[in-house]
Amino acid sequence: MTTEAVRKVFHSAPFIAALGMELESVEQGACATTLELEERHLQQNGVVHAGVLFSMADHTAGGAASTLIPEGAHVLSVEVKISLLRAAMGEKLICRARVLKPGKRLSFVEAEVFCLTAGEESLVAKASGTMAIISAG
Amino acid sequence: MTTEAVRKVFHSAPFIAALGMELESVEQGACATTLELEERHLQQNGVVHAGVLFSMADHTAGGAASTLIPEGAHVLSVEVKISLLRAAMGEKLICRARVLKPGKRLSFVEAEVFCLTAGEESLVAKASGTMAIISAG
Amino acid sequence: MTTEAVRKVFHSAPFIAALGMELESVEQGACATTLELEERHLQQNGVVHAGVLFSMADHTAGGAASTLIPEGAHVLSVEVKISLLRAAMGEKLICRARVLKPGKRLSFVEAEVFCLTAGEESLVAKASGTMAIISAG
Amino acid sequence: MTTEAVRKVFHSAPFIAALGMELESVEQGACATTLELEERHLQQNGVVHAGVLFSMADHTAGGAASTLIPEGAHVLSVEVKISLLRAAMGEKLICRARVLKPGKRLSFVEAEVFCLTAGEESLVAKASGTMAIISAG
Repeated sequence: MTTEAVRKVFHSAPFIAALGMELESVEQGACATTLELEERHLQQNGVVHAGVLFSMADHTAGGAASTLIPEGAHVLSVEVKISLLRAAMGEKLICRARVLKPGKRLSFVEAEVFCLTAGEESLVAKASGTMAIISAG
Repeated sequence: MTTEAVRKVFHSAPFIAALGMELESVEQGACATTLELEERHLQQNGVVHAGVLFSMADHTAGGAASTLIPEGAHVLSVEVKISLLRAAMGEKLICRARVLKPGKRLSFVEAEVFCLTAGEESLVAKASGTMAIISAG
Repeated sequence: MTTEAVRKVFHSAPFIAALGMELESVEQGACATTLELEERHLQQNGVVHAGVLFSMADHTAGGAASTLIPEGAHVLSVEVKISLLRAAMGEKLICRARVLKPGKRLSFVEAEVFCLTAGEESLVAKASGTMAIISAG
Repeated sequence: MTTEAVRKVFHSAPFIAALGMELESVEQGACATTLELEERHLQQNGVVHAGVLFSMADHTAGGAASTLIPEGAHVLSVEVKISLLRAAMGEKLICRARVLKPGKRLSFVEAEVFCLTAGEESLVAKASGTMAIISAG
């Protein structure tokens, strides 16, 4: 899939549009996204909900994996593990994903989520996942 | 924490309220939730986004773990892995979580997510996680 | 693969024979194994090494998955997560694995490892994994 | 713990000595190990058993985490996920682990396992784990 095609499909998931995720960049085997934090992304104690961090990591990793598959194919998350390294509080999340090992049937991906707080970026979560490549036919 | 206290805190997370998750039941070491599916929960191809399944699994597991901690303490997700067993398409999600092994500092939890489609329930995702218990002081 | 065929191949892995794992039972979608604990299975502090628990969980889960694939095919571990619930000290390990969701290309599996200590069984580890099915041709 | 203390304790685990793992280097937050491959490390089809790759990843990550804890404390694996990226066949395994995020109670670690085949190193597995820090008292 061309990076152009990945760009097109990226925001078409209603859940991602509703969440407010934005595509920042996409290149062969890598993808980056951002999310402006609002109250609706938070836990009761004011930190970002793990579900928001996971959703960014999963979708951004899917974007990265999509750049390395044939036209017409698509990827499906098989499993994803996320480690919550630090409480995330701030203005903005930035997610950077990459393909660790591409394959014909399976792609191994990783994603890091950073939180921007008062101008400082810190790594708040790291995910590792497996994506299945579903061919067109 | 009493099940009553868990009930009170459950919906107070803005992200969970925005997502539309409802608490169904909570008892010692277990919790169940539901989510009426709408278009905003979906991927571009019409299946439920992995981020929605994860958010339910994580928050429901947190509810289950919270029933086994001292009053005033709270739980924090350390890491959660989710396996996406089947594409989820239907009217409603049901999540059932339980504590696999409680502890003073860490609790091991599991959550299963079922999708209700034309009256039939099928298991669409299973999560396994670790929660840290943060004491009040 | 017939359960008979799984039995035959089970002990043929040199690492499994060296470890001392024994096949206890195998049926459609499930497998159980045992391991008599010796000093060579331990950490420096006398508890069973996580590597031993993982090896049992992975191989037993592979046995379970193998019962649900075509003759001539074999399974390959894609990823496995193991949670170490309790320190394992005792005479014997017992592992029970099952297929959570079989598939044509991927099988989702789970394995529980119990430790037998003075006649009492306790759950010491739980694993969740994905196996790829590699066809014969 | 000083790197000197980590060196001392490293080979004292009977399982690690039996497996044949060697400590290559240890520094603040990082550790590297090697394993000369023999037939007893293999699956029935001649590739290295996932249990061997996991054992290396887990123990090396434990070594890395141990360099960042107080004297007298020790680490315990809470959970570890390993992704098996490629079949490992060759002469030697090399594992490099690092602490992704140290903490007072929990440390997040990662480990990569490389296989040396005819002079070429390739990444065959990647693990991500959580270690609990158990204080001396």
